[in-house]
Amino acid sequence: MKAGIITIGDEILIGQTINTNAAFIGEQLTALQIEISHSSVVHDNIKDIIDEFKGAFENNDLVIVTGGLGPTHDDVTRKCIVQFFHTELVTDDEVLSDIKKFFEVRGRQLTKTNEEQSLIPKIAVPIRNSRGTAPGFWIEKGNKVFIAMPGVPYEMKGMMEGFVIPSLYEMIGKTKIYRRMVNILTTGIPESILFDKLGNLEELLSGASLAFLPSQFGVKMRVTAQGASEEFVKNKLDEIEQKMRSVVGRFIYGKGDDSLEGVISKLLIDRNLKLAVAESCTGGLIAHRITNIPGSSKFLERGIVAYSNASKVELLKVNEDSIAKYGSVSLEVARQMAEGIKAVSGSDIGLAITGIMGPTGATPNKPVGLVYIGVCDDKICTAKEFRFGDDRILNKDRASQAALEMLRRNLLGITYDD
Amino acid sequence: MKAGIITIGDEILIGQTINTNAAFIGEQLTALQIEISHSSVVHDNIKDIIDEFKGAFENNDLVIVTGGLGPTHDDVTRKCIVQFFHTELVTDDEVLSDIKKFFEVRGRQLTKTNEEQSLIPKIAVPIRNSRGTAPGFWIEKGNKVFIAMPGVPYEMKGMMEGFVIPSLYEMIGKTKIYRRMVNILTTGIPESILFDKLGNLEELLSGASLAFLPSQFGVKMRVTAQGASEEFVKNKLDEIEQKMRSVVGRFIYGKGDDSLEGVISKLLIDRNLKLAVAESCTGGLIAHRITNIPGSSKFLERGIVAYSNASKVELLKVNEDSIAKYGSVSLEVARQMAEGIKAVSGSDIGLAITGIMGPTGATPNKPVGLVYIGVCDDKICTAKEFRFGDDRILNKDRASQAALEMLRRNLLGITYDD
Repeated sequence: MKAGIITIGDEILIGQTINTNAAFIGEQLTALQIEISHSSVVHDNIKDIIDEFKGAFENNDLVIVTGGLGPTHDDVTRKCIVQFFHTELVTDDEVLSDIKKFFEVRGRQLTKTNEEQSLIPKIAVPIRNSRGTAPGFWIEKGNKVFIAMPGVPYEMKGMMEGFVIPSLYEMIGKTKIYRRMVNILTTGIPESILFDKLGNLEELLSGASLAFLPSQFGVKMRVTAQGASEEFVKNKLDEIEQKMRSVVGRFIYGKGDDSLEGVISKLLIDRNLKLAVAESCTGGLIAHRITNIPGSSKFLERGIVAYSNASKVELLKVNEDSIAKYGSVSLEVARQMAEGIKAVSGSDIGLAITGIMGPTGATPNKPVGLVYIGVCDDKICTAKEFRFGDDRILNKDRASQAALEMLRRNLLGITYDD
Repeated sequence: MKAGIITIGDEILIGQTINTNAAFIGEQLTALQIEISHSSVVHDNIKDIIDEFKGAFENNDLVIVTGGLGPTHDDVTRKCIVQFFHTELVTDDEVLSDIKKFFEVRGRQLTKTNEEQSLIPKIAVPIRNSRGTAPGFWIEKGNKVFIAMPGVPYEMKGMMEGFVIPSLYEMIGKTKIYRRMVNILTTGIPESILFDKLGNLEELLSGASLAFLPSQFGVKMRVTAQGASEEFVKNKLDEIEQKMRSVVGRFIYGKGDDSLEGVISKLLIDRNLKLAVAESCTGGLIAHRITNIPGSSKFLERGIVAYSNASKVELLKVNEDSIAKYGSVSLEVARQMAEGIKAVSGSDIGLAITGIMGPTGATPNKPVGLVYIGVCDDKICTAKEFRFGDDRILNKDRASQAALEMLRRNLLGITYDD
């Protein structure tokens, strides 16, 4: 089964909105073993949209469209569907009742504009929207499927999970070729060194394929294998993963959908350890990432964003003389911050970070991108220097990743020596 | 001038990486008044890539390609360019010296794989890469321009800003039709109510166009106008903006690239006020957003992530009896947290938030999505209840936005009554 994804909206084309919808849909279809042949973005323009519908519906078994179904004047997708499929609009009573309920629950008044969203193409099965007012459409024609959903990611996801994925799953049944991929997640090692360390790739992969996907959080290695049985494919992927781990295992923090913060959360919960975090340069990002994980309240005792020197002294018991002697961005102060947050919070582990994120704050000896990270547990307090780039936001990402990685290595007893 | 954007990479198609590159390029071209006709994503596959090159180069004056220029085996874009333009690879000495320097500065060893990145298509002008090793290519053929850049966003952006945009700007010179857009940013009001409040759109816009772009942070209204002179367009946009402000002004926190945290930073710095933030449910996200703004150290005194009840009592001086009586997620505790963080930090304003982000933590009386936000200044301490949805990550975004908006309204004396 081959699929095309169409995203409608000038805001995507001109870059005001990032196309997360196509990514989400791509991921879900891939999990269903549906191949995505092409993905495109088109203007909020009836002619362009209908042209794109034609090309995509001709070349694929499945077309998924998002965007342009909202209540306002610039939402033209419904009109295009009516023209493309030569159909007409009819009121759907269930959808109308959904919309009325949506407004009732929120204590908001129903407008005529909202009420008109219950008009759906006659040829379509409505996809009901539990998270908003615009319904989606499921259209079958000549063994092909055409799906349209609103562009609001949260609403689209609700429809995908509640209706589209189960329906597609039922339709495609079981396929005969098994294709699986695994993502091996590394951090703290550049792409080219990873590549060189892995050695002869043909030998390593023996028919499988490998892609390196670098970002500020590290390099993801995506391995894809296929074969006649699920077991064959699983064994091949396991074997490749093991070979990779034997060479670059210390840099691998997880696989698949793992996040570094998720991996750490699991380690801390399993070992029943309490963590406290003291952040200067990352300004709350480390605590934010940790608290994205459900259940983080079990182990995160507190976080302190100590931007000022005074707050470092008062809240983290950093020695004033050390700040004067070494500077607030120094190995010594990072170590003391980690020690301090551990002590004042009564936690098992203290994690601390101080650095210069830019664009300002550099001195002749301390450039933008210089970061010190400290970790303190019941046995030892250590700190380490890192050098990142000159972009403030990327530096915060990189620094938070390095800090979480240092915590992971501390928990697992992995050193930084080669 | 019409442009097509091509993004190469399976990782984008299957949704493992979100296509931020196309968004960035779209934004930059739009600013240069270049119309983006189409954007597409294709496989890491030589035939698919060359087919897409053909279609895009035929239909546009400018084609910008990203991805597939890295040092590893799955990077095939250079090969496709050589085939498509019937050219060959030659070593570029400047690029080679850039690569050598890149490794020298970082104290890393140059590998043969990296060295080979200095091979560039004979027909191309290399776009030098100050942030990585792979060069980009600028190719001119028959009045058309073809540009290829690496897919790593940070490297691509460096090339766009340092080379591509200035070169395109010089090429296109000045155009005769002026087209400008402005984004008016709102929060705390749903799309359909905004739409209804604006009334007769034709009258409001008189020829300009308007798009509503909702997200968890609010609704962006994008107004686009065109005309024969820059002044005409500017006046028209100003007039529309003023009309909008007269109806929904209290919900408008900024325009263009403004962020709510940036708007607040400016207000606090201008008034020389110190802020301290106490977060429970947002777990550091508010402090993170504020510290994304360069210069936030001028006004952010400290942030506390007080996840546990004990830390609320100890660090924020919340009354233990109040937690027992009202619960830690309550109007009263939010108010006390704001009062406490203001007092202990000696700041001018305390901002505090407590809530239930999900998936767990709900009680019969307190559903997931329930949030209380408190603000305390020298005159008054208030708190307000909000109800969001059931997705943890989106709830954190929404809650942080509502808290920053409550702070903005406090600073500007805007009430929540209609």
